[in-house]
Amino acid sequence: MSRESDFIAALRPLATDPAARGLRDDTAVMEIGGRTLVLTHDMIVEGVHFLATDPPADVAWKLLAVNLSDLAAKGAEPVGALLGYALSQKDWDAAFLDGLRDVLAAFAVPLLGGDTVAAPSGAARTFSLTALGTAEVAPSRSGAAEGDGLYVTGTIGDAGAGLEIAAGRRDGPAELLQAYRRPWPRLEEGRRLAPHVHAMMDISDGLLIDASRMAGASGLAVVIDLGLIPLSDALARFAGDDREARLRAAQAGDDYELLFAAPALPDGVAATCIGRFVAGAGLSLEDAAGPVPLPPRLGYEHGETR
Amino acid sequence: MSRESDFIAALRPLATDPAARGLRDDTAVMEIGGRTLVLTHDMIVEGVHFLATDPPADVAWKLLAVNLSDLAAKGAEPVGALLGYALSQKDWDAAFLDGLRDVLAAFAVPLLGGDTVAAPSGAARTFSLTALGTAEVAPSRSGAAEGDGLYVTGTIGDAGAGLEIAAGRRDGPAELLQAYRRPWPRLEEGRRLAPHVHAMMDISDGLLIDASRMAGASGLAVVIDLGLIPLSDALARFAGDDREARLRAAQAGDDYELLFAAPALPDGVAATCIGRFVAGAGLSLEDAAGPVPLPPRLGYEHGETR
Repeated sequence: MSRESDFIAALRPLATDPAARGLRDDTAVMEIGGRTLVLTHDMIVEGVHFLATDPPADVAWKLLAVNLSDLAAKGAEPVGALLGYALSQKDWDAAFLDGLRDVLAAFAVPLLGGDTVAAPSGAARTFSLTALGTAEVAPSRSGAAEGDGLYVTGTIGDAGAGLEIAAGRRDGPAELLQAYRRPWPRLEEGRRLAPHVHAMMDISDGLLIDASRMAGASGLAVVIDLGLIPLSDALARFAGDDREARLRAAQAGDDYELLFAAPALPDGVAATCIGRFVAGAGLSLEDAAGPVPLPPRLGYEHGETR
Repeated sequence: MSRESDFIAALRPLATDPAARGLRDDTAVMEIGGRTLVLTHDMIVEGVHFLATDPPADVAWKLLAVNLSDLAAKGAEPVGALLGYALSQKDWDAAFLDGLRDVLAAFAVPLLGGDTVAAPSGAARTFSLTALGTAEVAPSRSGAAEGDGLYVTGTIGDAGAGLEIAAGRRDGPAELLQAYRRPWPRLEEGRRLAPHVHAMMDISDGLLIDASRMAGASGLAVVIDLGLIPLSDALARFAGDDREARLRAAQAGDDYELLFAAPALPDGVAATCIGRFVAGAGLSLEDAAGPVPLPPRLGYEHGETR
C-alpha cells in the first residue's frame, strides 16, 4: 500500500455519504433540486504533476483540463470552476492567466471564484481547482459486466512520450509535447457515451493501472490485447509499435482519454475496443503472439512523481 | 494595490458569469435545479495561514471552519466538502485526520471527495478545501443601505490574541488560543439572519478592513464606534479594553464572526450594533471621546502572512 492509499483508506470512514461513492471514483455525484451535480477537485504540485520548466500557460491549461476530464468521464457538462492559486512571480502569474483564459474559453467554462494566497518564497508551486458539472446519468467505474468490451477513445501513450520530450530526455515532435502539456478532455464523447456504458473513467495514471482499477471496482477480471491499443502515427514513429513500446504507452499516464465498459460500441463515438471483462479478478495481457507477462509497474500510483 | 489585488483584478474579466459575483464576494452563488447553491474554495499554506507549530488536528479544523464561515455568511446549510491534501509525515497526517473527523462531525458535513497528492520533501504544507451548501437567499456584501446599522456576532479580537499566544510571543488563556485554532463558524446565526439583512460577510481579515470592504461594495461610508465593539472578558483581561486595545482587536483578523448590515437587529440572533452606514465613502472611527484617527493598517490584505 502506498502512503496515499493508506491515507485514502483512513478518509473513507469519513466519507459515508452516497455522493462520495466511497472515494472510489474521481468525482462526487449528488442530487440537488432534481439535477445530478458532479464535483471534482484536483491539486497539482510543481515537481510532482508538472515540471518547473513547463510553460505557465500550459500549467493553467492542464489544471483545468484534468478536472474537466473527470467530468467528461461522468458524462457531465461543466458549469463552472473555482481556482485555488498560490501567487508566484509576476511574469509567471501573468503567463498562467493567459493559459487560464485560453482553457476557460476553449471549453466554455465560467470561472466562479476561488482563493488567491501568498506562498513562502521558493515553495513548490501548488494549485487547486474544483470543477462542477451537471449530468443526466453519471456512470461509475464499478459497473462493468461480464462480457463487456473495454473501449478507449483517442490514442494512448502520446502524453507519456511528450513528458520525455518536455523533461529534455529526448527530442521529439510538437504534437507529442502538446499531448502532454495541453490534454483535451473528452467532454463531448463523455456526454454521448454516458447513457450507454456500464462503467467509465478517464485515464490519468496509465491505461493498465486504470483498467485494472475498473475491473477491481466491478468485481471482474479484464483482458487487454496489447495489439489493439490505438497508437498515434507520431508515437509509432517516435517509439515504435512493438510489444515493448505498447507496454510503455499503456503505463505512461496523462492520456486523459475515456476508458469504458460497454456491451458494444455506442453509435456516434469514435473509440477502440482493446479488451474484455471476464469472470475472475485482475488484469491480464495478450497480443497476437499469445499471453504477455504483466510489467512490474502498471502506471502511476496516485501522487507519485511524474 | 497588493500583488493579490492585481491578480484578482486580472481574473475578473474571466469571471463574467453572474454566479461569480464579480469575484467581489467570498463565495459563488448559482441557481441549479431551482435551488441556490453556494460554493467556496479556500487554500491554506503553512507559514502564511497557519504556524508550523500549530497542532495538525487544529489545522484540519480551521481548514473546514473557514470555508463553513463563508457559507454561514450566505445563510447556507453545508451539503459537503472536497479536500485537497498534500501528504506530509505519517504522524502529522494521522493527527490531521483526527481533527478532520472532529470538525466534519461537529458541523455534520459530509466529506464528498477531493484529491491526495505527494509534495516535495520540505515543501510548505498546503491544503485546499471546497465547501458547498444550499441557501434560501444568499445576501451579498454589497447590499447595505444608508441608515442601516452595522452589526457583528460574538466578540472580536480573541483569535488575534490567540495568535500571539500560539506564536509564543505571550502567555495567555486557553480560550483565546482556542478562538484562533478552532474558530466556530456561525452557521445557525447565518441561516437566521440571511432573510433579514441587506448585506453580510464573515470577518476573516479584520473587522476594520472587512467593514470598509462592505461599505465600498455598497457604495457607502461606514462609521464604527470603537466603544461598542464587543470584547470577551478573557480578551479584556489579556489586552485591556482601552482605545488602543480595541483598535488592535478590530484589525486582528481570524474572527470568523458575521458582519452584517440591517435596518434593525433581527429577532432570535445575538449580535451587537457597532456602527452605521451613511452617504459617502470610506471608513471612519469614533468613540465616546470623539473621532478616532484610522490606524495605518486596517487588517490583513488577502494572502498576507499572519
